[in-house]
Amino acid sequence: MDRDNILLTPGPLTTTLRTKLAMLKDWGSWDTDFNAITAKVRQQLLDIIDGHDDYVVVPLQGSGTFSVEAAIATVLPRAGHLLVLDNGAYCKRMAKLATMMGRRTTVLSSPENESINLTRVEQAIIENPSITHIGLIHCETGAGVVNPLLAISELCKRLGVGLIVDAMSSFGALPINAKDLTFDALVSASGKCLEGVPGMGFVFIRKAILDTCEGNSHSLALDLFDQYAYMERTGQWRFTPPTHVVAALAEAIQQFIEEGGQSARLARYTENSKILLEGLGELGLKPFLKDEDIAPIIITFLAPSSANYDFKTFYNTVKAEGFLLYPGKLTDIETFRVGCIGAIGAKEMHQVVSAMALCLKQMNI
Amino acid sequence: MDRDNILLTPGPLTTTLRTKLAMLKDWGSWDTDFNAITAKVRQQLLDIIDGHDDYVVVPLQGSGTFSVEAAIATVLPRAGHLLVLDNGAYCKRMAKLATMMGRRTTVLSSPENESINLTRVEQAIIENPSITHIGLIHCETGAGVVNPLLAISELCKRLGVGLIVDAMSSFGALPINAKDLTFDALVSASGKCLEGVPGMGFVFIRKAILDTCEGNSHSLALDLFDQYAYMERTGQWRFTPPTHVVAALAEAIQQFIEEGGQSARLARYTENSKILLEGLGELGLKPFLKDEDIAPIIITFLAPSSANYDFKTFYNTVKAEGFLLYPGKLTDIETFRVGCIGAIGAKEMHQVVSAMALCLKQMNI
Repeated sequence: MDRDNILLTPGPLTTTLRTKLAMLKDWGSWDTDFNAITAKVRQQLLDIIDGHDDYVVVPLQGSGTFSVEAAIATVLPRAGHLLVLDNGAYCKRMAKLATMMGRRTTVLSSPENESINLTRVEQAIIENPSITHIGLIHCETGAGVVNPLLAISELCKRLGVGLIVDAMSSFGALPINAKDLTFDALVSASGKCLEGVPGMGFVFIRKAILDTCEGNSHSLALDLFDQYAYMERTGQWRFTPPTHVVAALAEAIQQFIEEGGQSARLARYTENSKILLEGLGELGLKPFLKDEDIAPIIITFLAPSSANYDFKTFYNTVKAEGFLLYPGKLTDIETFRVGCIGAIGAKEMHQVVSAMALCLKQMNI
Repeated sequence: MDRDNILLTPGPLTTTLRTKLAMLKDWGSWDTDFNAITAKVRQQLLDIIDGHDDYVVVPLQGSGTFSVEAAIATVLPRAGHLLVLDNGAYCKRMAKLATMMGRRTTVLSSPENESINLTRVEQAIIENPSITHIGLIHCETGAGVVNPLLAISELCKRLGVGLIVDAMSSFGALPINAKDLTFDALVSASGKCLEGVPGMGFVFIRKAILDTCEGNSHSLALDLFDQYAYMERTGQWRFTPPTHVVAALAEAIQQFIEEGGQSARLARYTENSKILLEGLGELGLKPFLKDEDIAPIIITFLAPSSANYDFKTFYNTVKAEGFLLYPGKLTDIETFRVGCIGAIGAKEMHQVVSAMALCLKQMNI
């Protein structure tokens, strides 16, 4: 088999061989050996946010979006009113799924190249007293903007509204500490900065609101209260878990701990992003966002202005050198995205910069 | 690492090393190489039911139950009325999820040790003209009963009602041919008789009703029409696919074809079930069902009547010999279940019979 391409995408990511090797075993989903893996993963996830006192964590089958929908379905009461702070594609998806399940949803639109403005959020909540919850994307992968999670959490607490956070692509890389933050639900998934393989998500839910979650969900599969209650009672998942994906996540978390946890991971990703920004800067490629809004997770670059540029050719040429890039997700401006996350370091970032240089030269840019 | 236990459960199953080795590669979910795997899997699934003319197939992230809920959400109109033919735990689950999503649902209860009675179904449909769809479990894993799919399909066609089939544990083993059957949706999953790993399901939907499915779903994640339309347009999954699980399924289907397809798989499972029934029969253990209702998928055995019997001890002793059994799921009678499916053959079935013999002896039964 040919050598694997390096994935410079917001997930699935390049994972270590050790993580993948953990999938070479079949587990009985009813068996105590597998239950022990699930229990350990749940403990370690709570360790990461220092959340044992105030939070529980509920894993869920499916992609990250399944967990976002499940979090809203479970935490937002049927009569609740969700204000989605929208500065990108994933915010729009959150608003769409909340609307589809029949929950009252309002969108506060912001430009996709700016992080959420606190004053506007406060104003919107005050002007609309029926709002019960805020929906926030921590790192909006659409453009890569980081939103001010801590400040929004404080605002929600002060104004007495709940907070549901999609921390899909930030969890494990950016600091998220339950001792500093208050939220009703916070969502991430296996195949992001924990560097597991994709196939499951997990949702932290505040213990204080757990009792109010029973019966909220419109969906059996996505009912996190039911999933939680069953798991607490039996140690098992309600429905067949993706056993190999869970085993890979356990192995990936072990390596996360060995690396030094969130701060070490952030340091590696930060170095990755610096090499990328400097290297592509030398090639004349500029990031779409202002420096202070960029997270070392995924970086959106403006496409070269040359008429010779074509994303498909660029993508395929860089792929032939062994690296998978990601297309832009902005409506008006042509961009491409490069991920800094996954089991990759300085070496791979230097290599991809070289590959892009070669490619731009071939395209006469 | 110790040798893997053999899984004698209704899934996850024991898979081949070749299937698991397919997971040692990271795929970009946006990339054409991965899209080609998805496309090939979809083609081959349609091949298996000879369904290219009249059906499409839509894969979905999550466990099989996610796909059952998605099938009903997508295929059953909001104003539809579902009659669930109930003879076991999975039927009850189907009725529960249909009710939770707000669809009108009626349950026709039958004993869990008998296959569905056609006359009663016909009567129920005639007496209740608002019924628009029948929900059927093909092989009800609760007790292992096979229901008469072909005859119910003919009945539904004759009476002009739609049919939604949960073929989770029968697909790939029992004959299901689109040229003989008419259904609106038929559901199965990766980790069952195709012998892939768990983490995704797939739903066959009749082309003739596809257009009527748009906008039915209460759930974005579970909307199979949206998943289908996006996949047709882009070749990609809407939300991050479980790439390693998909790659393993592709490899598992390749082996399914090499083995000789459904008839060869049924022959192997039938031999497995014969060895099991004969072997346990010699130990004095009797199946719960009448012979004609037993499928070579999972067999429910009555627990020994001896006071020395205890399922936990039995389970753990057989596990120490390398085999994982499955608990019973009946409310009134103590039983245990043994699966005949997965990448196992005569050798493993002889071994597990010996292991159980040893165990019963140790328990003085």
